[in-house]
Amino acid sequence: MARNETRRRELADAGLRVLARDGARGLTHRAVDGEAGTPVGTASNYFRSRDALVRGLVERIYERLTPDPEVHAELAARTPSRALFADYVRDIVTRLTAERDTTIALFELRLEAARRPEVAEVMTAFQRESFAGDVAFYLAAGLPGGAFEVALFHYAIDGLLLDRLTTSIDPDTSTDAVVDALVEGLLPGGSTA
Amino acid sequence: MARNETRRRELADAGLRVLARDGARGLTHRAVDGEAGTPVGTASNYFRSRDALVRGLVERIYERLTPDPEVHAELAARTPSRALFADYVRDIVTRLTAERDTTIALFELRLEAARRPEVAEVMTAFQRESFAGDVAFYLAAGLPGGAFEVALFHYAIDGLLLDRLTTSIDPDTSTDAVVDALVEGLLPGGSTA
Repeated sequence: MARNETRRRELADAGLRVLARDGARGLTHRAVDGEAGTPVGTASNYFRSRDALVRGLVERIYERLTPDPEVHAELAARTPSRALFADYVRDIVTRLTAERDTTIALFELRLEAARRPEVAEVMTAFQRESFAGDVAFYLAAGLPGGAFEVALFHYAIDGLLLDRLTTSIDPDTSTDAVVDALVEGLLPGGSTA
Repeated sequence: MARNETRRRELADAGLRVLARDGARGLTHRAVDGEAGTPVGTASNYFRSRDALVRGLVERIYERLTPDPEVHAELAARTPSRALFADYVRDIVTRLTAERDTTIALFELRLEAARRPEVAEVMTAFQRESFAGDVAFYLAAGLPGGAFEVALFHYAIDGLLLDRLTTSIDPDTSTDAVVDALVEGLLPGGSTA
């Protein structure tokens, strides 16, 4: 069973690389086997249909993008503040930038979700769960506002990552400076520039 | 020549629908002919290679997303202010939401640009020109800051549109309320909440 789980994870990781490299239409069981170096038929053994494959990839994306427990424990131990939230956002941006293929794969599956209701269903479940986690962290940090403010950050960070991982409109601006400006502007109660 | 231009535009529009429906990998000359209802070979007559086709689609995207001259003239006639800029942003969001296929096609090509340098080159040229236009409007409105602030709006609006056109984390929040909050937070010199 443990061995099966490892293989399943390897296949999912191969699927994420296929998605990043070829886009959603390139995602087939055969392409996953090719990328993973497994015999043809292996991927469809683990993921019985394309929907099952997509579901497995969405699960794997959120698993890979989950905060490092050590970083998170360190953040959770600090006194809640604006600066703490800024570090939380910075950690998210750093992780998603480092996990380039995973983040690109996530964008691919979001577009795929716009086309296919079965994908939309899986994506929505994971996105909402992740969003609820962010809102909980935000509220626990005692920051003013709630879900609405966290959603603003989601939008801005998604757009920032899309810019940084694809073609950038302002490649010379530091990503940290952007994050600082977003926290300064979008977190209620800050100083005005 | 005028007739050729019309046909070229029809083929490009068909290509945008293919992109929105099937993603970047589904974009072939044959698929464009199928969508446009033109004889096989027509699309490749107008766009000699896949690169030429992609270039034609990027051109057409920016043509379609160009502000309505009447709306823009009305905005340009008003006294520059924060409220004017808010209306400018609101006009962008309204147009890109209404042009759903075009906006989805733009996201598809941005991801394609992350994979293929030839696409990245075309995309970068159009994105930078469009960005420069936004910065010029912003500066002409006498607002504090410049390119950096406009880039923040680009990120946030891209993420907002991606949310609204695919799976949404907070579908019950009004898009106008989000735009207002972004202008309030990201435009320097506003009141604090």
